[in-house]
Amino acid sequence: MSKEHYLDSSAVHNVWDNSIEPRLHIDPGDTVIFECVDASGQQVTPDSQASDLTQLDFGKVNPLTGPVYVDGAEPGDTLKVEILDLKHKGWGWTGIIPGFGLLADEFPEPYLKIWQLEEGSAEFKPGIRIPLEPFCGSMGVAPRVDGPIGTVAPTEHGGNLDTRGLVKGTVLYLPVWVPGALFSCGDCHAAQGDGEVCGTGIESPMTVTLRLGLVKGASISEFRFETPSPLTKTDTQGYYVTTAHGPDLYKNAQQAIRYMVDYLSAEHGLTRPEAYALCSVAVDLKISEIVDAPNFIVSAYLPKSIFTA
Amino acid sequence: MSKEHYLDSSAVHNVWDNSIEPRLHIDPGDTVIFECVDASGQQVTPDSQASDLTQLDFGKVNPLTGPVYVDGAEPGDTLKVEILDLKHKGWGWTGIIPGFGLLADEFPEPYLKIWQLEEGSAEFKPGIRIPLEPFCGSMGVAPRVDGPIGTVAPTEHGGNLDTRGLVKGTVLYLPVWVPGALFSCGDCHAAQGDGEVCGTGIESPMTVTLRLGLVKGASISEFRFETPSPLTKTDTQGYYVTTAHGPDLYKNAQQAIRYMVDYLSAEHGLTRPEAYALCSVAVDLKISEIVDAPNFIVSAYLPKSIFTA
Repeated sequence: MSKEHYLDSSAVHNVWDNSIEPRLHIDPGDTVIFECVDASGQQVTPDSQASDLTQLDFGKVNPLTGPVYVDGAEPGDTLKVEILDLKHKGWGWTGIIPGFGLLADEFPEPYLKIWQLEEGSAEFKPGIRIPLEPFCGSMGVAPRVDGPIGTVAPTEHGGNLDTRGLVKGTVLYLPVWVPGALFSCGDCHAAQGDGEVCGTGIESPMTVTLRLGLVKGASISEFRFETPSPLTKTDTQGYYVTTAHGPDLYKNAQQAIRYMVDYLSAEHGLTRPEAYALCSVAVDLKISEIVDAPNFIVSAYLPKSIFTA
Repeated sequence: MSKEHYLDSSAVHNVWDNSIEPRLHIDPGDTVIFECVDASGQQVTPDSQASDLTQLDFGKVNPLTGPVYVDGAEPGDTLKVEILDLKHKGWGWTGIIPGFGLLADEFPEPYLKIWQLEEGSAEFKPGIRIPLEPFCGSMGVAPRVDGPIGTVAPTEHGGNLDTRGLVKGTVLYLPVWVPGALFSCGDCHAAQGDGEVCGTGIESPMTVTLRLGLVKGASISEFRFETPSPLTKTDTQGYYVTTAHGPDLYKNAQQAIRYMVDYLSAEHGLTRPEAYALCSVAVDLKISEIVDAPNFIVSAYLPKSIFTA
């Protein structure tokens, strides 16, 4: 008989480290409800101002709820994480943090949008509404190497995946590197585009319900997942798409987003920081072709359905 | 009153060059029906064998039907290409061409799949069926620089875009660099994933109907487009997704596709060349996150709906 467990957010950890004591031991197949604070570790609140983002203590960002010890998990197994539910708490934030993001050099000033989250969507500003498609930005297990690893970059143990496909109904597979796996999660996003270009989605505290299972002996090298259709609620009224070509996919992504910021500013009356933030929560980066050397194409897909006016 | 014109494939051009004489003069708003041969320039036929791909004359690949002179088009304008219809001719091919493609070093042997195209789908092998979502791989205008430019790499004048979003119902915008724009097209694909990882989609001769218009004075630097929903017919039964992280998006894309080839070989009984070719026609590469330095994530999305058995 599988059990349901509850982990509050009274204790979080701010590094991945296989020496962190588990807060919970469970059997494979048990369900855990995780209370997750927001990615700033409660440094941003509904009353915050943009200037507060310049004072962020990066030692506190991407705090994680966990670890959970899954009995019987051994290195070489795969941890199966069924994403059962995510519930927000009514608010979120999207920020441009100086020095961080795809176009950091072009957006040196802090910007902060505080969102009021309704049941299924949230207003960016009048006439622009984003459907909520919540997921955990960070899910991972303890690393095989000893010592602390930061929580900003994803690695082979998972971590800050920031992959919008990891919504309710998805099954995530993570490699197990240490006995018990030592799973933790956090950094919930109420919505995010593929790329998360400004560096933040709709960052939101959430209650996350996951079922943790094991696939014994099914070794994988990096995370993978199975996700249901449709891929996004926004694919209903078509897309406006900018593209950029060149030998460097990263620079192409930068350029495609620059074009999109130009477009949103010119045609939808947004300030440039607003446009950049909107790209981060709603625009999807795709690699359209990666074979016609020397020029590859990255495309930025803006869903028209977010414009309600 | 707008007119309809017809351009057969009796004359094609194998370079982009602003000195190529237009085969047709039209008014903005006119419709043109283009007969397009396949991307090999009829070197591949329904009777071809894989070994024939080692003999390809690359001087003949990506042949283009055109150019079309649009009266009144001037540098600084934008050419508006409404994609009205694409009709295949019952067959197509997907090839692994030695030395070409995302994993060229790992697939040194030629591979050729000849497809029989039905009305809305085509069988890859028993139990695997690809819905047809046809588009022109190559659409472009004459370059501003004098002299010939090859047809394999896309540049600022468009060209070999290989972007699967350019299906029927899409409006493509291209910058105009020379008087008359001198539009041409070719390289039709009956289906292709984002990335076109093995270097070919379902390469097919087609009849393409386009309406060519002008947006005067609306200068853009690279192609962009507006495309209808849904983005793909395959988004009905969820996806199996492999991912790879690291500082180099290109290497991440290679690794994510390697994982997918491994998966398709192990779980769906495909040979590795079959798996790689299937990725090229059906798997979508997405940039899941591009901000969590030093590690960015590229994901490869395999639609489960293609498996019919």
